[in-house]
Amino acid sequence: MHLTRRLRQKQMNSRLSYFTAGREGIWSIRDVREITGKGLSLEKRLNITTLPPAGNEKWTLRGIRSNERYTTTEEKSQLIEKQEDLGRPDSKFAVLIPIKKTEEWWQLSQDRRREIFEEQSKHTSTGMRYLPAIARRLYHCRDLGTNEPFDFLTWFEFSPGEQDRFDTLLSELRASLEWTFVDREVEIRLQR
Amino acid sequence: MHLTRRLRQKQMNSRLSYFTAGREGIWSIRDVREITGKGLSLEKRLNITTLPPAGNEKWTLRGIRSNERYTTTEEKSQLIEKQEDLGRPDSKFAVLIPIKKTEEWWQLSQDRRREIFEEQSKHTSTGMRYLPAIARRLYHCRDLGTNEPFDFLTWFEFSPGEQDRFDTLLSELRASLEWTFVDREVEIRLQR
Repeated sequence: MHLTRRLRQKQMNSRLSYFTAGREGIWSIRDVREITGKGLSLEKRLNITTLPPAGNEKWTLRGIRSNERYTTTEEKSQLIEKQEDLGRPDSKFAVLIPIKKTEEWWQLSQDRRREIFEEQSKHTSTGMRYLPAIARRLYHCRDLGTNEPFDFLTWFEFSPGEQDRFDTLLSELRASLEWTFVDREVEIRLQR
Repeated sequence: MHLTRRLRQKQMNSRLSYFTAGREGIWSIRDVREITGKGLSLEKRLNITTLPPAGNEKWTLRGIRSNERYTTTEEKSQLIEKQEDLGRPDSKFAVLIPIKKTEEWWQLSQDRRREIFEEQSKHTSTGMRYLPAIARRLYHCRDLGTNEPFDFLTWFEFSPGEQDRFDTLLSELRASLEWTFVDREVEIRLQR
């Protein structure tokens, strides 16, 4: 009892976000697709909050914004120059993609993961070609301390006219060597 | 109420450990030293558990074992070859060092952090020179989702005869460029 009281009182980290499916939120869920492994149920709306949901949700994912793990100084300055913020008036479409990677991936050393991620799979440079049209934000789940169902959540935002280009971006990433380390992936298509 | 019940029921990640100061545990606390910023109170014993403490503790730190952030394939194979496990019968001394780094550090790109960490500060190669005598394990706190007081906890174990060498290791690391990014550091000296 003492512990749960302390957990509740402990201020949650402001970098942490909850993605809650149910009846609330500005985003309506258009589709939920199982890409690899077990999917998630199709619900009406997705709510994004910094406080935990009240308890009547269908499912909740949570993730934390953190430092970059693979980006070089040069890539970072290019990203900062090209990217635009989330919440642009034209960005009526969004896609949330939760991903879990294999234990083999996590056992690789840092330089080997970087090599697969960028030199072989071109993850950053592929995403960069779609900037600023397709805005993107990454949330980490793997080290939250609880047994989370995914390792990352990636949030994409774009105008409805960019949907075909977004689908091409997804196909390119999914054809990469990096994606052979993906254990579970779900695609949640949203509209504001 | 519903949320805290769910939090309590949610299985905690097996990579997560609690370091609890109070009256229990196989490690007696010899000394607590404030190195940078605010210290921690000197208590009798330190208990290390994978379940949260019952509630009568003086202070608790928690951290999660995770993938390596800077180690190259070559460094990793050298470490695996030289290092020994925790819990050796001779390892009667241990030191727990919680550290918080500056926001400036976390804003650096991955290649710049690696450069400071190893090419300039020789973090891995310095630690390697003291293997296998001084065993070491790293726990991460920064992305646990709560506002943790530290970013990392490092646990060192060695035989009492190695204490002088351990102090030299600490001096070397603290004189490095990497340590100019340390915001808070406490040193907890323990004996089994």
